[in-house]
Amino acid sequence: MSHQTPGDPCHLTATQALALIRADALRPEALMEACLDRITRVEPKLRVFACFDPAQARAAAASVPAGPLQGLPIGVKDVLDAADLPSQYGSPIWAGHRPRADAAAVAWARAAGGVVIGKTVTTEFATRHPGPTRNPVNPAHTPGGSSSGSAAGVRAGMFPLAYGTQTAGSVIRPAAFCGVVGYKPTFGLINRAGMKIMADSLDTVGVLARSVADCALFAGAVSGRDLGDPDAQPARAPRIGVCRSPSWPAAAPETQALLERVATALGWAGAAVSARELPDGYADLIEAHPIVMNAESARSLGWELAHHRDRLSESLRERMDFGLRQTEAALDNAYAVFARCQAGFSAAMEGLDVLVTPAAPGEAPKGLGWTGDPAFNFIWTSLHVPCVTVPAGTGPNGLPLGIQAVGRRGEDRAVLAWARWVEAALG
Amino acid sequence: MSHQTPGDPCHLTATQALALIRADALRPEALMEACLDRITRVEPKLRVFACFDPAQARAAAASVPAGPLQGLPIGVKDVLDAADLPSQYGSPIWAGHRPRADAAAVAWARAAGGVVIGKTVTTEFATRHPGPTRNPVNPAHTPGGSSSGSAAGVRAGMFPLAYGTQTAGSVIRPAAFCGVVGYKPTFGLINRAGMKIMADSLDTVGVLARSVADCALFAGAVSGRDLGDPDAQPARAPRIGVCRSPSWPAAAPETQALLERVATALGWAGAAVSARELPDGYADLIEAHPIVMNAESARSLGWELAHHRDRLSESLRERMDFGLRQTEAALDNAYAVFARCQAGFSAAMEGLDVLVTPAAPGEAPKGLGWTGDPAFNFIWTSLHVPCVTVPAGTGPNGLPLGIQAVGRRGEDRAVLAWARWVEAALG
Repeated sequence: MSHQTPGDPCHLTATQALALIRADALRPEALMEACLDRITRVEPKLRVFACFDPAQARAAAASVPAGPLQGLPIGVKDVLDAADLPSQYGSPIWAGHRPRADAAAVAWARAAGGVVIGKTVTTEFATRHPGPTRNPVNPAHTPGGSSSGSAAGVRAGMFPLAYGTQTAGSVIRPAAFCGVVGYKPTFGLINRAGMKIMADSLDTVGVLARSVADCALFAGAVSGRDLGDPDAQPARAPRIGVCRSPSWPAAAPETQALLERVATALGWAGAAVSARELPDGYADLIEAHPIVMNAESARSLGWELAHHRDRLSESLRERMDFGLRQTEAALDNAYAVFARCQAGFSAAMEGLDVLVTPAAPGEAPKGLGWTGDPAFNFIWTSLHVPCVTVPAGTGPNGLPLGIQAVGRRGEDRAVLAWARWVEAALG
Repeated sequence: MSHQTPGDPCHLTATQALALIRADALRPEALMEACLDRITRVEPKLRVFACFDPAQARAAAASVPAGPLQGLPIGVKDVLDAADLPSQYGSPIWAGHRPRADAAAVAWARAAGGVVIGKTVTTEFATRHPGPTRNPVNPAHTPGGSSSGSAAGVRAGMFPLAYGTQTAGSVIRPAAFCGVVGYKPTFGLINRAGMKIMADSLDTVGVLARSVADCALFAGAVSGRDLGDPDAQPARAPRIGVCRSPSWPAAAPETQALLERVATALGWAGAAVSARELPDGYADLIEAHPIVMNAESARSLGWELAHHRDRLSESLRERMDFGLRQTEAALDNAYAVFARCQAGFSAAMEGLDVLVTPAAPGEAPKGLGWTGDPAFNFIWTSLHVPCVTVPAGTGPNGLPLGIQAVGRRGEDRAVLAWARWVEAALG
């Protein structure tokens, strides 16, 4: 399946489309029609949408307010409510649920001129059990998860912007697997009200798009945060720490080669590149993360567990049981690991602008049964730090690889700027 | 209005009622009837409930599962969803809303044998604009807010246990004003899924009851945390730091006298009592808190703002506008103050088991127009630390005063044990 159809507005970046809309060279309705045409052609194969109402999307595109997202179609992961569409959260338990209100992230996107084009497929409650979505680059492969539909739809030309959420690796991994840009902001930067909460200490709303600038545009517009001028050039090249991280044993050969290749390319582009590993103790996050995630998720799904246990997938029930089995001491220790590593991370980046590290162990796995391993995401999600994955070539099967830029908590503008620099250097 | 009617089960503590139920000396249905009788008599004056369905409460009491809350009636603040009752969140915007699921806190309470007796009045979205609830001790006075109905109902004999939530001082202050015990746990201890989120960095689910042991029983049962044996005696007397805190200028004369009196009483009871003030910089939390709270709340209410701005109270609109007006620098600074003070708090408590500090500036204000000043709550809520208020006599108008015990983050079991010690010493 070809990604690029030159001239079709459905493949424009959000930034390109917005410039045309503002210059009266593209009408929001025409952009929407291009996306709807594309959806008609590829949705039967890719299964990106959990819910999709073209008439409603058309009507919304015909009356967009002026704003930073004016007329841009947005795919909304189906763990964020939209008042005019059902929410199913990837579970049969919630079939037919009609929320009364938009999630805050959706309300602010609409207020900024964005147009909700549909709800995108999530795995079951944004955890492991997969949905039907296929990878647009090779439909025999998973798109990754849990933000499966958002990643696939951005790649396939269905919408330029999409919301995802990340509790382990659910924005960064599918973005990397589909060859798009994914941005998991600092924890809390995009408001979570109206999201189906799973793990309160980890759940982070993020965005997927076709460029780093698009991610900054989108997340900035909905958060009210200044995430930088997409046209600005950094005054100097970055000081980059190339980080294998404690997850390195999970890296496939193509990822090991990728990190080498990227380090070389960034150095040739002028960056000051050095190897940087996390201090002792950060590997503990790999064990602490699933304890916190599953203990919190099991509590969050208390109603589902009490009334619909048999309609939860077996894998989710197992993980919830694992969460509920944790002792006081194990839980206390896991939270202590989080606190200690979060507090020390700025120091761990001393002298660097940004870390560069794999986004995923390798290419998207074959088949739809498993959305892949978040090994390279546990640590950064637990640290609450901003992460951006940018496409970085392909692996042995021709599927995309991503490289992840990581910065200090709260320094989202900086990490986005350096991710743009990396994107340009690799592009 | 008399608080105690000896012999009426509606005034039992949860711990007392549970012992009788387990000994087959009190049936859950009989306890429920006693509470419903009491409600029939006092609800017309006190206006505790946002929604109340006696038939449903009776039916639930007739079929409770065995568990740590077996047969105990629970008032649920109307910012937490219950699947069988409407949620209005204290706002006309949400009139008639029927949530599909229980909030996690409600689901786990029911799974533990608790019986939801009704939804209790909250101020508008748990912020400032008051509901109709009156203080049971003197109906000319506010019960405090935002957990107004929960505090008043526990005091008035309508239910032994209630959920509250605290973003500024919304558990501790109404508990103190109504002369009951309020417990705001460590941030996140009770799961927030299914709560109407306002300020994601601050919102904390808490509980109100008639004793510290009841609070520990309730919060432990729903969180899966071991919050201590209510019958256990500490092996030694506590090392108590009496803390005026940077909010001291807000203390009314009765509160100034209270802190002196309490310090003396605790010393006589055997505690090692010393004065302890917070290090420089903690006063910054008093300015940082409303910046974070209002900036986050304004984002959280994005849908309400876009579609129902004219149905928000003027005071809430003003606070949301204040939140949205904050500059990047002001927001970044406020979050930095939170992080710095949170990181330093254990050291600030060096050598102490617990801090003792006012729960509120004074007695409950007269009238229903203002639920009172959270001056003595901003700091502790921002620190994410566990707080327990216990009744500590009355002020010049005969209204209750509370004294607040504060501990280290995550050390809820310890602060509850020391709060029991303080309760016994003052009782």
